[in-house]
Amino acid sequence: MKRYALGLDFGTESVRALVVECATGAEAAQSTVRYPHGVITDRLPGSEKALPPDFALQHPQDYLDAAIAALSEVAKKVPAAEIIGIGVDFTACTILPVLEDGTPLMSLERFAGNPHAWVKLWKHHAAQPEADRINALARERGERFLRYYSGIISSEWMLPKCWEIASKAPEVFAAADLIVDAGDWFVQQMTGSFCRNSCAAGYKGLWNAELGFPSAEFLKALDPALAGLRDKWLKNITPPGRRAGTLTRAFAARTGLREGTPVSAATIDAHSGVAGMGVSKEGPMSIIMGTSSCHMSLSRDLKLFDGYAGVVKDGILPGFYGYESGQSAVGDIFGWFVNDFLKVPDSDPFAEIAKRAAALEPGSGGVVALDWMNGNRSVLMNANLSGMLLGLTLRTKPEEVYRALIEGTAFGTRMIIEASKRGGVTVDELVVCGGLTKDPMIMQIYADVTGLEVKVSPSTQAVALGAAIFGASAAGAKNGGFDTMPEAIAAMTKPAERTYKPGKKAGAVYEQLYAAYQRTHDFFGRENAALMKSLRETVTTTREK
Amino acid sequence: MKRYALGLDFGTESVRALVVECATGAEAAQSTVRYPHGVITDRLPGSEKALPPDFALQHPQDYLDAAIAALSEVAKKVPAAEIIGIGVDFTACTILPVLEDGTPLMSLERFAGNPHAWVKLWKHHAAQPEADRINALARERGERFLRYYSGIISSEWMLPKCWEIASKAPEVFAAADLIVDAGDWFVQQMTGSFCRNSCAAGYKGLWNAELGFPSAEFLKALDPALAGLRDKWLKNITPPGRRAGTLTRAFAARTGLREGTPVSAATIDAHSGVAGMGVSKEGPMSIIMGTSSCHMSLSRDLKLFDGYAGVVKDGILPGFYGYESGQSAVGDIFGWFVNDFLKVPDSDPFAEIAKRAAALEPGSGGVVALDWMNGNRSVLMNANLSGMLLGLTLRTKPEEVYRALIEGTAFGTRMIIEASKRGGVTVDELVVCGGLTKDPMIMQIYADVTGLEVKVSPSTQAVALGAAIFGASAAGAKNGGFDTMPEAIAAMTKPAERTYKPGKKAGAVYEQLYAAYQRTHDFFGRENAALMKSLRETVTTTREK
Repeated sequence: MKRYALGLDFGTESVRALVVECATGAEAAQSTVRYPHGVITDRLPGSEKALPPDFALQHPQDYLDAAIAALSEVAKKVPAAEIIGIGVDFTACTILPVLEDGTPLMSLERFAGNPHAWVKLWKHHAAQPEADRINALARERGERFLRYYSGIISSEWMLPKCWEIASKAPEVFAAADLIVDAGDWFVQQMTGSFCRNSCAAGYKGLWNAELGFPSAEFLKALDPALAGLRDKWLKNITPPGRRAGTLTRAFAARTGLREGTPVSAATIDAHSGVAGMGVSKEGPMSIIMGTSSCHMSLSRDLKLFDGYAGVVKDGILPGFYGYESGQSAVGDIFGWFVNDFLKVPDSDPFAEIAKRAAALEPGSGGVVALDWMNGNRSVLMNANLSGMLLGLTLRTKPEEVYRALIEGTAFGTRMIIEASKRGGVTVDELVVCGGLTKDPMIMQIYADVTGLEVKVSPSTQAVALGAAIFGASAAGAKNGGFDTMPEAIAAMTKPAERTYKPGKKAGAVYEQLYAAYQRTHDFFGRENAALMKSLRETVTTTREK
Repeated sequence: MKRYALGLDFGTESVRALVVECATGAEAAQSTVRYPHGVITDRLPGSEKALPPDFALQHPQDYLDAAIAALSEVAKKVPAAEIIGIGVDFTACTILPVLEDGTPLMSLERFAGNPHAWVKLWKHHAAQPEADRINALARERGERFLRYYSGIISSEWMLPKCWEIASKAPEVFAAADLIVDAGDWFVQQMTGSFCRNSCAAGYKGLWNAELGFPSAEFLKALDPALAGLRDKWLKNITPPGRRAGTLTRAFAARTGLREGTPVSAATIDAHSGVAGMGVSKEGPMSIIMGTSSCHMSLSRDLKLFDGYAGVVKDGILPGFYGYESGQSAVGDIFGWFVNDFLKVPDSDPFAEIAKRAAALEPGSGGVVALDWMNGNRSVLMNANLSGMLLGLTLRTKPEEVYRALIEGTAFGTRMIIEASKRGGVTVDELVVCGGLTKDPMIMQIYADVTGLEVKVSPSTQAVALGAAIFGASAAGAKNGGFDTMPEAIAAMTKPAERTYKPGKKAGAVYEQLYAAYQRTHDFFGRENAALMKSLRETVTTTREK
């Protein structure tokens, strides 16, 4: 009898179920199902009322419907008895308010029309004012948890989003028994019990092993309305790879899986990719490159420096401090420019522009982009920042702008690498996966800009594979899985097939462009951060009137 | 018998002949003919060899062919005997090297393939290194002529372009008896004799009434090769509106005009528009808004301050110091964005985007543009600057960028107005003409951004009308014209029909965006001007390799 592990990977637009063989990592079955409502930014389903700016919501039933469809599909192809463990990864920080039994508040009739009762997706950015005040007060009080996040927390995280609910929709806040990560919620839907994964709790929930959660005093000082917030947070922290529970009979029946199958504690989607890319040591920076990018490094030692989004002990893999950083838009920027601006009536609008951009010499457009079209959540951690294009002339062509946008995201990655190295975390190669790795031009630009080798993960589904690896670990060796993550990773992943080496000539040109990037990065991001904020304010003011 | 005056208006792409009645300014006949070769930027006609970056050339025979066609056309509609005077305006600084008899050097076989023997159009920007060195040396030597140009001269002007010929094509320079303004050259083609108009000589040729031309010592100090340059410049300065000569029999025969018709000294096209818009006093700033914009003000007194491109006594109208400034791309920026980026398969690509942009509230896009896509030739006078877009987000729509580009040019105009006012030149309203004045949105944006009333000239051909007014003045009263320019202007122009008043609410939003414009203007234009220059250098380096 073969042994399989199942990874369930919840992305921004869809969920993927992937079944792999435990002995080899070979893919045995997979299914991807889109969320019927996708990302909700303009208005709630069935409503005519416009949502405020910066809202990004989802429908929790979408997760269930899509996952059950995907699981049912793969369960037809692999015997349920041979699936020995299930891992779950999820976008983060994606949260929802629920009753004690897991019922989402938006499913109650009285809250159906209240956007704050819905799932707030990771890229919901409306809680920036709350994040600003949390940062200010935490700094003022010298809260030690701040040191784990380079001194600044993001509007995307758990506390700002919880506070937004408390202040904008106190009735929703009062009715919520719990406010949970969507990944933990889904594990509860599968197993019948809640447990909180240490990855999301650490990177997004202000928890760390040494200090626990932010104190009740701090929350009360923020806002007396938050006095009860700690009680709405799950406290039973569980590392990904450890068993959270087993499949309930009801869930098994809806999917064709086996009741009692071990389910791992959830993890963040990007962080799952580190295991899926085969990384289990210091040195490589793992990057998931898709609509946004997430950067992860491992270090045996704790280094507290500025320029990463979070450090969590055992947050990525046991035995390492895991460092996370991110770029809040990457592929999204390319899509925005090509789809919204070029309006070429072509079935594949990217094909032509990518071809033209690939034919350009590095730097030949003389255009530099700041890649902050969705704010900055790496070294500046500021959602009020916005994108910039510099060096435009009447001769500038669309493919030069397209290439500059790609280069801008590579410069953004280099800023993260340099901050890591200054902080004492080794970065000696890039290991990458995600949709953007298909384009050789993008890979070569990243190698040339960073001066590092770029190794492309052979799995096109490294994140889902990582989730399966966590599932195999949760099962344990006695059930046909593995007792340690490095063993599971070694067995279930393959070495890179494509490697891009940095070019000397291109590197020299990019040094010059990177200097311009750095100068404008610091001008708009540090010295004059109020300037871009003032522009966001004219948008808000004029849209609200 | 009626009396008519004829204006001959040489633009960037075409020449227009306009015949108006002297008593009323009523248009009696007109004809516009495009230059067959247009603007030559990529390669010389019949050549496969790419021109260097920043080249913009023209074919002198185009001027003759197009003008003769246009003149022949209007001469069929108005009796030649009733045309009492002709005025000529021309783009500036557009120059060409010629033999003593006016033969353009490019028409000699041995120079036909040498781009430096061709006409260098005003927007030829390849002489920036020469301009930089002229500025540096003039500053070092304390050359007094610099004070008439806010301390800085442009790569577009006569001396940098002459020096470019001398250094890049010494054989052309040596063979040139004269290097002349194209307007003066065309008057010579009509009348058989050269005279140099004070307008181009003053604004672009470094001549002023008090000091004359730059000294031979200065030129020699720049480059010993320029020792003979003064001898190649015409010295018989003649104000526009004064007679340069009369039509030769040969030219009359080719056009159907009357031999002996008085011809005025030429003038710069934009400056001709001041008369054509009916302005003959202090207060209004006259703006010609087309592919680029030119801003002109009149003052009884000489004010030497920073922020204008030139001040010339009697340079625009007798009795006033004329102040000129300019934006080197305006309509060109809108055209570049709409035609090169949006690629909408529409017969009128501007119609849809202009409609959507007009529906936006001011500031609702939160995007600010620096309008330097063709360098800056107003308060910064630096062709190495380039355009910038700030405030881009994944929600930014093309019409928001389009509107931001328009607003950026309006902010650029406001910079000029504020510099003028600080310098002591009154600016209390804007009087405008040119192609862009057709769009009410653009006009309203200029009013809202500047806080001034915008009056649109009722003549759609104010520049050509101005040339005709100069022609009527050159004829004099005894020939049915006028003895003074104010008399001619009063008789031949009408008051504005459309006026745009500044809005309070929009003005307040634009104050905020203008603050962002000013801050980035100073950062990129003053404090860090080397940054944009470094981007231009990567373009040059990579294109040359």
